[in-house]
Amino acid sequence: MVFERLADKWTLLIIRVLRQGPCRFNQLRREIEGISQKALSQTLRKLERDGLVSRTAFPTVPVTVEYALTGLGDTLSNRITPLLSWAEDQIQHVLEAQRQYDSRQ
Amino acid sequence: MVFERLADKWTLLIIRVLRQGPCRFNQLRREIEGISQKALSQTLRKLERDGLVSRTAFPTVPVTVEYALTGLGDTLSNRITPLLSWAEDQIQHVLEAQRQYDSRQ
Repeated sequence: MVFERLADKWTLLIIRVLRQGPCRFNQLRREIEGISQKALSQTLRKLERDGLVSRTAFPTVPVTVEYALTGLGDTLSNRITPLLSWAEDQIQHVLEAQRQYDSRQ
Repeated sequence: MVFERLADKWTLLIIRVLRQGPCRFNQLRREIEGISQKALSQTLRKLERDGLVSRTAFPTVPVTVEYALTGLGDTLSNRITPLLSWAEDQIQHVLEAQRQYDSRQ
């Protein structure tokens, strides 16, 4: 159940951005390519409910809302980062494997 | 692109099972709760194309097919395992956070 939440692209990308520090909604939206307003707000609500992200509203006019990793969210982000860097480091190997696979079809 | 492949429940669960050693199709299907025949064969094909899983056919009658992690697949599984154990270790904290969140609604 928890695991299924992790195997979600937007969850992993949001946690990666929040690892750099608290963020507002639109800032998150700018930093995560291709995420819709709906997907971002739904995923943030799930992450807040799971205790991984905190939501703080500041009494400015208009109100500003900031999202941040909780302690629990931080422990998770420590395990996501190696996965993300693996994807970045190994992309050439994967692309080469795909070329070879496709040439055998 | 590669990253999106990782943020997939079946991918992560298949790699976790293959981390214990080579497996046949039906063995994988038994070990991964809820996966359909179609989802398993599609995901295995993607993993083979990405160079993460090898597929070996043995000339038995009928032919038997075995799936195994490649070297590249093994390096990935080393990064998935901490994520899976995090999910197992932290489930109580997540459930507690959900109870508190739901009580505030």
